Amino acid sequence: MAAACRRLVAAPWFNAASFIVIVLNALTMGLETYRGVVSSGGPAFHALEYVFLACFSVELLVRFAAHLPRGGGFFRDGWNLFDLAIVLAPLVPGVRENVTILRLLRLARIVRAFRLFPSLRVILVGIRRSLPGLGSFLLITLLVLYGYAMVGWMVFGEAQPERYGTVGQAMLTLFLLLSLDGITDTLQAGREVTEWGILYYLSYMIAASYLLTNLLVGVVLNALQEAHEVEKAPPPAPVAGVEQRLA
Amino acid sequence: MAAACRRLVAAPWFNAASFIVIVLNALTMGLETYRGVVSSGGPAFHALEYVFLACFSVELLVRFAAHLPRGGGFFRDGWNLFDLAIVLAPLVPGVRENVTILRLLRLARIVRAFRLFPSLRVILVGIRRSLPGLGSFLLITLLVLYGYAMVGWMVFGEAQPERYGTVGQAMLTLFLLLSLDGITDTLQAGREVTEWGILYYLSYMIAASYLLTNLLVGVVLNALQEAHEVEKAPPPAPVAGVEQRLA
Amino acid sequence: MAAACRRLVAAPWFNAASFIVIVLNALTMGLETYRGVVSSGGPAFHALEYVFLACFSVELLVRFAAHLPRGGGFFRDGWNLFDLAIVLAPLVPGVRENVTILRLLRLARIVRAFRLFPSLRVILVGIRRSLPGLGSFLLITLLVLYGYAMVGWMVFGEAQPERYGTVGQAMLTLFLLLSLDGITDTLQAGREVTEWGILYYLSYMIAASYLLTNLLVGVVLNALQEAHEVEKAPPPAPVAGVEQRLA
Amino acid sequence: MAAACRRLVAAPWFNAASFIVIVLNALTMGLETYRGVVSSGGPAFHALEYVFLACFSVELLVRFAAHLPRGGGFFRDGWNLFDLAIVLAPLVPGVRENVTILRLLRLARIVRAFRLFPSLRVILVGIRRSLPGLGSFLLITLLVLYGYAMVGWMVFGEAQPERYGTVGQAMLTLFLLLSLDGITDTLQAGREVTEWGILYYLSYMIAASYLLTNLLVGVVLNALQEAHEVEKAPPPAPVAGVEQRLA
Repeated sequence: MAAACRRLVAAPWFNAASFIVIVLNALTMGLETYRGVVSSGGPAFHALEYVFLACFSVELLVRFAAHLPRGGGFFRDGWNLFDLAIVLAPLVPGVRENVTILRLLRLARIVRAFRLFPSLRVILVGIRRSLPGLGSFLLITLLVLYGYAMVGWMVFGEAQPERYGTVGQAMLTLFLLLSLDGITDTLQAGREVTEWGILYYLSYMIAASYLLTNLLVGVVLNALQEAHEVEKAPPPAPVAGVEQRLA
Repeated sequence: MAAACRRLVAAPWFNAASFIVIVLNALTMGLETYRGVVSSGGPAFHALEYVFLACFSVELLVRFAAHLPRGGGFFRDGWNLFDLAIVLAPLVPGVRENVTILRLLRLARIVRAFRLFPSLRVILVGIRRSLPGLGSFLLITLLVLYGYAMVGWMVFGEAQPERYGTVGQAMLTLFLLLSLDGITDTLQAGREVTEWGILYYLSYMIAASYLLTNLLVGVVLNALQEAHEVEKAPPPAPVAGVEQRLA
Repeated sequence: MAAACRRLVAAPWFNAASFIVIVLNALTMGLETYRGVVSSGGPAFHALEYVFLACFSVELLVRFAAHLPRGGGFFRDGWNLFDLAIVLAPLVPGVRENVTILRLLRLARIVRAFRLFPSLRVILVGIRRSLPGLGSFLLITLLVLYGYAMVGWMVFGEAQPERYGTVGQAMLTLFLLLSLDGITDTLQAGREVTEWGILYYLSYMIAASYLLTNLLVGVVLNALQEAHEVEKAPPPAPVAGVEQRLA
Repeated sequence: MAAACRRLVAAPWFNAASFIVIVLNALTMGLETYRGVVSSGGPAFHALEYVFLACFSVELLVRFAAHLPRGGGFFRDGWNLFDLAIVLAPLVPGVRENVTILRLLRLARIVRAFRLFPSLRVILVGIRRSLPGLGSFLLITLLVLYGYAMVGWMVFGEAQPERYGTVGQAMLTLFLLLSLDGITDTLQAGREVTEWGILYYLSYMIAASYLLTNLLVGVVLNALQEAHEVEKAPPPAPVAGVEQRLA
């Protein structure tokens, strides 16, 4: 039976079916946000929830059976532990009564889509790998934001406590200013405190837009370069295939 | 006569003339939106409409005649069917009386410009080809939008039903937030519900701007690469030329 | 004397001096916009204006003398004609009395900076050369804008005449929507007319942002490629040098 | 003892410890902006300030001792002079009483982070080197902004003195317009003065967005090219190592 499960896990239609269940589950959760739908079809939603729970449990059991007779390998894959947590958590006493946590657990099932699409995981890996190369830029950006926030607190802290009352508030104000939303009003308010406000905001906008552009374009170019290297390198063994070979 | 039509269809000035008719037709439709112009020159517009209709019909007949004696090839080109539908649809009983559909049909003639400019079609083909390569990013973006919409409905659904009343509403709110229009107000409203709102919006803005940049720049780079490959490859036979050679 | 002028025109400090005069002229014009400065130093500004006029006239005479004994070559350079027009136009009767035109003529002297900086002209040439390659994208963008404007006039023309009253108004509205300024309000107003407004605006935003990104990034990449090719090619003979060699 | 100091300065953990002191110092300054924290732990902050001052002094003394017996090399490094200024300035009579300057001096310590992270300095060097190559674009952008500001003052100066009263005001207005914040209102106000206002603003938006895109993307591409060349070139000797070898 373990061999049959291994073949099942490696079959393309098994992953496809799991993905469809995830999508249906997400759509059902979306439908539940419409008041009219819930009031007319409440019991059906309850039944569907049990169906989805059954589907996920069966999938998990099949994946576990594929690792038999030695089941230890099953627990060394982070995704299996994640699936297990999602299925078992609603049974834990403290969690069972908390509606918000239950909902978040059901929502977390969407994350399982990343397990089934290797290309999604490649992107996540690419993002994670590109971050250290961008560490210097992130650090500079943080230093610039912090420095401007401190100066802003010194200059505008007294006059505009709702914008620059504390360094945290000032950082939030400056971060939102990156969206250029209401920059004219903010600049006008700054000029009423001191004419140096123009210099403060103009220099901030120029520095911030320069750093942001560098950061975003840098992230993208790194990710693309990463992708090209991955394409040139011999393709990694697919996940399902690895499990099969281990057997 | 079929040979003469074939030569006509292959002539550069035939396409140019067709394009000019399309542009004149579009400009006439634009002029009709000005109340003063219509009231003073109403009958002239009616006459012009018949002139344009005649031009399109003649063009279509010439293209059809170019395929004679066997006219079947004419119907295998999607563009010919599109032209035929535009010319004949106004004669269908149900359509003839519906002013809106008639107007849309006349507007659809602008799309014929894509038929006459091969370079426009190359761009459309490039867009279509680049989409599968971006599928993973589109899927992630959709997952992120959906996940945030569900969390937003849970957290803000009660307090801000006009923003997060249903998952559809929440997705629209979050999509519009991508434009950074009124982000300060939205964030302020979110903070009044819960201080966690800051974390929710900040993380959304960072994730969304990262994914959007990736998506847009990725689309562009794909399209450019596609274009370079097309340039290196032997040029495809021009459309009019194909028809000529078939004869 | 012509030989001396030729040497003068070819000297680097001659161009530098001309550029400094242009900058001083521009700064003087800027100072004149400050009411207090004008009231206290009015006569000085009048005197300065005559000084600048003298400088430009002398420069023009030197450039003309460099072409002697045959002065025809002077008039074959577009920049010389431009300079001549700027210096002589204020003497024409109809122009002399019109303050606005006189001011625009003085402002046009700033454009002369492009003559003196070859690298500025390289950029202008690059922009002009990159446009035909982008013609298809510009045409598609125009078609999309025009098509959406016509549909917008049909759907919203009655209900929102200030936004979609004519096709020109609609194109302006849609163009301004590209700035994403007030998109939430516009979308809300559109929904009140018809629920299809969401589809209209969302599809427009996606199509427009895609085309705009393509357009802008395409322009930049074209310009950079152009610049690289110019760098690889043997450098063009400098303008001043050409005049020298012709002598 | 000088040899021991040299070894200390070259040790990786010495730089790491200095960086941690800078971060702690910055966080302490941030905490001081929260009123509640200061009122409850005021004396502790005073004590901490002395601790940080001691740390910086000790670090500076160690760096100086590493240059002994000949201490002249210490003063040839700009960073050492910067550190010295930060530590000694609060003792100067005029400075000691000025709270704002004292605060700015404490804030300036954050800049020391650039000394300790060579990769941060590489970025700064890259930015500085890329600027001359972009000089032409910056000059064009400035010319365009100045020209539009002068025209704006001529056209709108009388009617909208708060926007175009002087050329400085007009440049600020046009610079803020780059953020597209409130463009619809500004355009509407411009149309009320003259219908040519549409042409003025539309041409400005197109020219500005074209130049800005060129500028930003150019900066980024230059910086990346610079980075690639630095990577290919043999790595520069690390700063600490240089001091060691000099000994």
